[in-house]
Parts: sequence; C-alpha cells; structure tokens
Amino acid sequence: MVDVPELVARAREGQPRAVARLISLVEGASPQLREVMAALAPLTGRAYVVGLTGSPGVGKSTTTSALVGAYRRAGKRVGVLAVDPSSPFSGGALLGDRVRMSDHASDPGVYIRSMATRGHLGGLAWAAPQAVRVLDAAGCDVILVETVGVGQSEVEIAAQADTSVVLLAPGMGDGIQAAKAGILEIGDVYVVNKADRDGADATARELNHMLGLGEARAPGDWRPPIVKTVAARGEGIDEVVEALEKHRAWTEEHGVLAERRLRRAAGEVETIALTALRERIADVHGDRLVGTLAARVVAGELDVYAAADELRASLTEGE
Amino acid sequence: MVDVPELVARAREGQPRAVARLISLVEGASPQLREVMAALAPLTGRAYVVGLTGSPGVGKSTTTSALVGAYRRAGKRVGVLAVDPSSPFSGGALLGDRVRMSDHASDPGVYIRSMATRGHLGGLAWAAPQAVRVLDAAGCDVILVETVGVGQSEVEIAAQADTSVVLLAPGMGDGIQAAKAGILEIGDVYVVNKADRDGADATARELNHMLGLGEARAPGDWRPPIVKTVAARGEGIDEVVEALEKHRAWTEEHGVLAERRLRRAAGEVETIALTALRERIADVHGDRLVGTLAARVVAGELDVYAAADELRASLTEGE
Repeated sequence: MVDVPELVARAREGQPRAVARLISLVEGASPQLREVMAALAPLTGRAYVVGLTGSPGVGKSTTTSALVGAYRRAGKRVGVLAVDPSSPFSGGALLGDRVRMSDHASDPGVYIRSMATRGHLGGLAWAAPQAVRVLDAAGCDVILVETVGVGQSEVEIAAQADTSVVLLAPGMGDGIQAAKAGILEIGDVYVVNKADRDGADATARELNHMLGLGEARAPGDWRPPIVKTVAARGEGIDEVVEALEKHRAWTEEHGVLAERRLRRAAGEVETIALTALRERIADVHGDRLVGTLAARVVAGELDVYAAADELRASLTEGE
Repeated sequence: MVDVPELVARAREGQPRAVARLISLVEGASPQLREVMAALAPLTGRAYVVGLTGSPGVGKSTTTSALVGAYRRAGKRVGVLAVDPSSPFSGGALLGDRVRMSDHASDPGVYIRSMATRGHLGGLAWAAPQAVRVLDAAGCDVILVETVGVGQSEVEIAAQADTSVVLLAPGMGDGIQAAKAGILEIGDVYVVNKADRDGADATARELNHMLGLGEARAPGDWRPPIVKTVAARGEGIDEVVEALEKHRAWTEEHGVLAERRLRRAAGEVETIALTALRERIADVHGDRLVGTLAARVVAGELDVYAAADELRASLTEGE
C-alpha cells in the first residue's frame, strides 16, 4: 500500500513522480482511490481548467503545446491531461504527445499526462476530473484537458471545464462535422487553427453563421470569440490566452464559474452513486438476489415492484 | 381510490371494462399501481405472449387481426396490445386499429388495447409487461403485443415475448432496413407479408441469406422459419400459427421459455429498482441533498466518492 499523505506531500513539493503516481492511483480502480481523493479534497479548487476538443487533424496537441509555452512565459505552473476515452493504454505519454510536447518535457513547471479512461468507476467521463484534482492539488495554476476525438465521451470531458475551447481547421467540411458531433454547443472560445491555409476565412464565417454570432444577445451574455491561429508557428496563441482570460473573468463576474463547478460536482456525485449501485446489483451476492427475485416473480409469488423494493433495500444493507 | 380486489375479480369474470380500467391503472404512474400488480401476481404466468414488430407499412395490424381470428376459431381467448412508445396518446384504441380490428370489436373473447408508454416508471419498455400481466390474469390464452415502429424501444418490447415475430414486406430494401433496426436478431418467426406482390421471393431469399439459415446449426437449435402471407386475405395465417406453436413447444422442451421469462423478470426488477433510485435522487429532498453535497465538494470539504456514499445512504433512508 502506498503512503498517501507522504505521496501527497511530495506532489505538493512539485515532485513529478509523486504526481504521476497519484494520477495512476486515481485513474484506475485502485483500492486507495478513496483515500487519495479524501486527501486531495482540501487542496483543490484553485486551478483554472481549460478543455480542448476538435476533430483529429485540427492540431490540438500543437495548440496545447503552444498554450503551455504561453502560460509558462507568464510564470504559471501548467498541467496537461491528454484523454483518450477509447484507448486501453494509459499511465504514460503517448508517442505523438511526447514528440509534440518535447519542448516542455524537461520543464519542472509542466506536468504532462496521457490517460485512458476505460473501465473507470462512474464511466469514462469521470476519470479525468480525478486526475485534474491531482494536478490542482499539486499546485498547477492552469490545467489543459485535451481529448483525442469528438465522440460523446470526448465532448462530455471537454465540457467539464471552466472554459471549453473548440478547435477547427479549414476545409474538410469541418464545421458541419463539428456540428454533428455536438461540439458547437460547448465552445466558450473557438479556434480556427492552420489559418494560413486556404479556406480559413470561410471556416470562420461558416462557424460565425452556425453559432448565430451575428444575432443579438442579452447584455452580459458571453459571445464566444473565434480566434485564428497557426499554432505550429505560435501565431495567434497570445490571442487565445487573452480570450481564455476574458472568459474566465466573465464566468467569475457572473457567477457562472461557481455554477459550473457546482453542476459538475453534482453530476459526478450522482453518476458515481448510481454506478456504484448498479455494480452492487451486478456483484455476486446481488446477482444471485436478482435471480431469486426474478424466479419468484415468474412463479407469481411476488410482483416486479415488490421485487424491485427488495433489491433496493439490499443495495444499502451491510455497507 | 379504486377497489382493486373487486376490479380484479370482475376482470377474471371477463368484464372488458374492468380489464380496461386495470390497464389504465398500470400503464400510468397510478398510486395504486403497486396494489394492482401485487393482486395480479398470483394470477399470471399462464398466457402465451407473442411479440410482433416490423417497419410501418408491412401490415402488422392486418396480420395481428388475422392471427386473432385464427386463435378465436381454435377457441382461445386473445389479448392484443398495440404499443406506441413515442405516442403521448393512450387509454383507448387508435383509429387505425379500430378499423382493422373491427372484426373482433364485439367479440367478448378478445381484448384490444392501444397503449402509449411514455413516462412510465422503469422506462418505455416496461409498461407493456404490466399490461400483459393484466390480460394474463384476466384469462387470455394468447397475448399479441404489436409495436408500431422499429425503434430501439419497439425492438426491446417485441423481444420481451415468449415468441417474437418479425414482419417484412417485399421491396423497399426492407431487409436491410430491418437489419439496421436490429430486428433481425430478435425474430423467432419471420413473416413476409403481402407475398402476392413482386419481390416476395427475393425478400424471403435475402432474409434467408442474412439470417444465415442455410448454415449448419447444432442439433436442437431453433431455426427461425420464414412464412409467406397475404394477411388481408387470410393466406398463410394458419402457417404462422403453426410456426408459433412449434416455437412455443421448442422453448418449453429446451427450457428456453423458463429461461426467457426469468431473464425478462430480472431485467424488469433491475430497471425498476434503478429507475426508482434515480427518481429519488431527482426528488425535492434528494435534489437539495445533491446540491448540498456538490457545494461541499467544490469547497474541498468532501471528496466526490464520500459525497456519493452519503447520497447512496440517503436513498434508502426513511423508506
């Protein structure tokens, strides 16, 4: 068993291996998961969490890397979490990230972590927030959560941020793909990357139209900006950081940040509770109980509602 | 409040209005739902339940009506349940059913009921089994459960039968549509209706190919028959009844009937229990509790797992 208080203390001191070890403990179904989360709880809530999503090929990792550079120049400690909900691999950086993130690999002010979230208690979308809490407790000022694709899980993960960034690139009918994937609804800031390519203006216009940005909004409403970047050359990155800071200020001013964090926590708590109940039904004792109850229903000894009551009662017995 | 034992007694005597009243009580969220189900439980398990599904236009109602006629000629009491998971209307026969079912409207040995299942405790798919139990308790020998479309709910409902019939008609690439809808996996008996039209043989061949009926099966395995009918003229209906009876005999002989009913009951009990738990979370007390827990998580006073434990504990308190 790991000495959790000791590990947390070392993570607070900025030891990368301690941070890595804590993330490993929380991303899987470690028996010490609860101990770790309980130890981290009082240390969390300070970091600013930015979600980044977009179709493969839009340059998410390059943009993330450029953002890391910008935040580092501003003296911030930065955490990067690259989440792949469909990958069974985790625990270390993927090759692609390693290459693109190599600028920051030796920087002690940057933590980079790839994680797979398959099989996590509470479902795919709820492993990332636990890793975010580790980085938060370890003293990161900004945490960038990057998802690999645009599936439902990716969108869910990216939406669990203080600010969500949606990336697009010119061509490929990307706007329509993004609309289909449902990511147009979650963006607080939009980035059209590879803006030196043909069609960048058209993509920005199409996006502007689809988002209804030309339409009137209530005063005080957030109007998502569209920022054009060439992340590989660092162009437009300062403007992205500026847009992020503006959004952050707006969410704080209007109580949106507090509301988002509350809603996120409520969703997490509900999902974890229901998943635990479902797993209890599926466990050996529960499974046998369901079978016994079903047999009594089929025999006409018990109706399904009374059987469901018995099942529910058994779920919290003996805990 | 309804006098449930009295109502059940009258339904047992064959009074159609008592049967209709009971179905109304079980299909909604009546406060007497549980009382009704408890009263019905000992009276159920005798009826043979047949599910019928297929795309709109294949002639499901006409086929159902013809099957009712065939079973009536054999002296059986028949219940018909037309389920529309997407319709907000319920409580009486829809116009279309009335017209097509008019042959049987005045027959005291036939109960016909259309039901919508929206908003039912335990989800769409679980309202139909309760109505089936009413018809079963009322003394129906055969219950035909017909779904209007081929969505996921319809497929689920049709699959909750002792025998599932999948209907197709020539043309319209119907086989491929059926495959997409997932109904090719649930058929115990396939019916190609409107078999007097061009393409009926092609549809049957295509179906035969898609089902892999030409392939070798283990001895004792069920090989779903494909029956061609012209239901509007009553052609092929006796063959369908014969196929149904064969499947029923096979399921009884191989323990499949008992196993299906057990699995169905287990699924129902689990779903009702989990839905009730989810609804408890969403109720006034629970909702406030989730909010309070979420606020403590955001404040760092509590971790999400400890919060989920508190939520779970509260779900069964004071019941």
